[in-house]
Amino acid sequence: MTESNKPSLEVCLSPALLHLFDVKSSIVVIIDVLRATSTICTALYNGASRVIPVASVEECVNIGRAIGGITAGERDGKIAEGLVHGNSPFEYPREFIENKTLVLTTTNGTKLLHMAKDAVQIITGSFPNISAVCEYLVAQKQNVILGCAAWKDRVNMEDTLFAGAVVNRIKEHFDVNCDSAIAAEALYTSSKDDIYTFMKQASHYQRLAKYGLEKDIHYCLTPDGANVLPLFRDGELIAG
Amino acid sequence: MTESNKPSLEVCLSPALLHLFDVKSSIVVIIDVLRATSTICTALYNGASRVIPVASVEECVNIGRAIGGITAGERDGKIAEGLVHGNSPFEYPREFIENKTLVLTTTNGTKLLHMAKDAVQIITGSFPNISAVCEYLVAQKQNVILGCAAWKDRVNMEDTLFAGAVVNRIKEHFDVNCDSAIAAEALYTSSKDDIYTFMKQASHYQRLAKYGLEKDIHYCLTPDGANVLPLFRDGELIAG
Repeated sequence: MTESNKPSLEVCLSPALLHLFDVKSSIVVIIDVLRATSTICTALYNGASRVIPVASVEECVNIGRAIGGITAGERDGKIAEGLVHGNSPFEYPREFIENKTLVLTTTNGTKLLHMAKDAVQIITGSFPNISAVCEYLVAQKQNVILGCAAWKDRVNMEDTLFAGAVVNRIKEHFDVNCDSAIAAEALYTSSKDDIYTFMKQASHYQRLAKYGLEKDIHYCLTPDGANVLPLFRDGELIAG
Repeated sequence: MTESNKPSLEVCLSPALLHLFDVKSSIVVIIDVLRATSTICTALYNGASRVIPVASVEECVNIGRAIGGITAGERDGKIAEGLVHGNSPFEYPREFIENKTLVLTTTNGTKLLHMAKDAVQIITGSFPNISAVCEYLVAQKQNVILGCAAWKDRVNMEDTLFAGAVVNRIKEHFDVNCDSAIAAEALYTSSKDDIYTFMKQASHYQRLAKYGLEKDIHYCLTPDGANVLPLFRDGELIAG
């Protein structure tokens, strides 16, 4: 808690900066908009019993086999060898994912999630579940770190924009003494009227658009398409 | 060089991210707007023969004694013990600094400068010399990294804004495939009409304003008050 008696709200723009933040006394929101945390909330919203995030393809295969889960993950824009599904939220409609376990390997998001393991609580956020995330954070009255998964540690546009959108919605309830948070919010405010066009400049947009994933990108940037709260407990994400 | 045949222009928001960039094949601009790189260009503009940036107070004292230079540096907003002058650009008018050597110790800026030592060329930039910096970068036709000194590795507003201002001025001459650069530019564009008011939200503004340094901050955010190019050569910054 800070002098204002409000909890703090900070933005960590890259996993390589996480050591500068007091993870142990904060709720950490893992943000990997394109597309891990968009897909996670979508699978849970559509009734998946849980999502198990793992770092490697090998781990994904082994856990999937052991528990009979659906293995998913991409490397360089393609379904990784040995896995069955990809990273697109559209691969997980209710008729497919309900009551099943999704074992998902992603590079950037999973890495950050494991780095934040000592947090008071870990949740995941993206535009499709922004309202659930914001309501939860306001209700907890605890310090919050919005943790951008970034791209191989490089700051990226989509995660920064989502962090800024959250700051914009909930800042009155927090003490925002963090330039990254102020900058992210200003960036979001200046682009929110046409966030999709703004995103077209971004490096990851161009990377994904090569694979024809404009529909995914639109969905991942649109609020509340899968408005559920993924809570991390004992190595699993479950709907809160 | 990238596919477009233009050199690349990237922004590194914190020294803790510098390892992600190809320093060896780039010109690196050290940015420490409040106040190291504002003071450096001011001293050189006012005729200082050179500025020697050093990491520690002890080194500052020793070098100052050895060469008869003016020792300067602050810790926690006060002139450091053993040194004679502070970090304010207003301490270095022509009648005082002309033909003298300034030995300056700063925490954030000096650290980044030494981290970037393998760069093709190191220069320093801030609003008071933004035009000189931009003209130089365009003329060189080489890859550029705008390196924000930040605050103890945490991303800060003023250095990000300056990086964004440079991107805004020179981007046509470069390939800007870097989300930090696009974000910094958007931040600058959205705040440039009243950059001083915008800066009042920032953490460092509040830190410095406590010491009554609003005049310094105004100067450091105003373009071209000391429009000279500090070039780093053999451990010294000289006017280019």
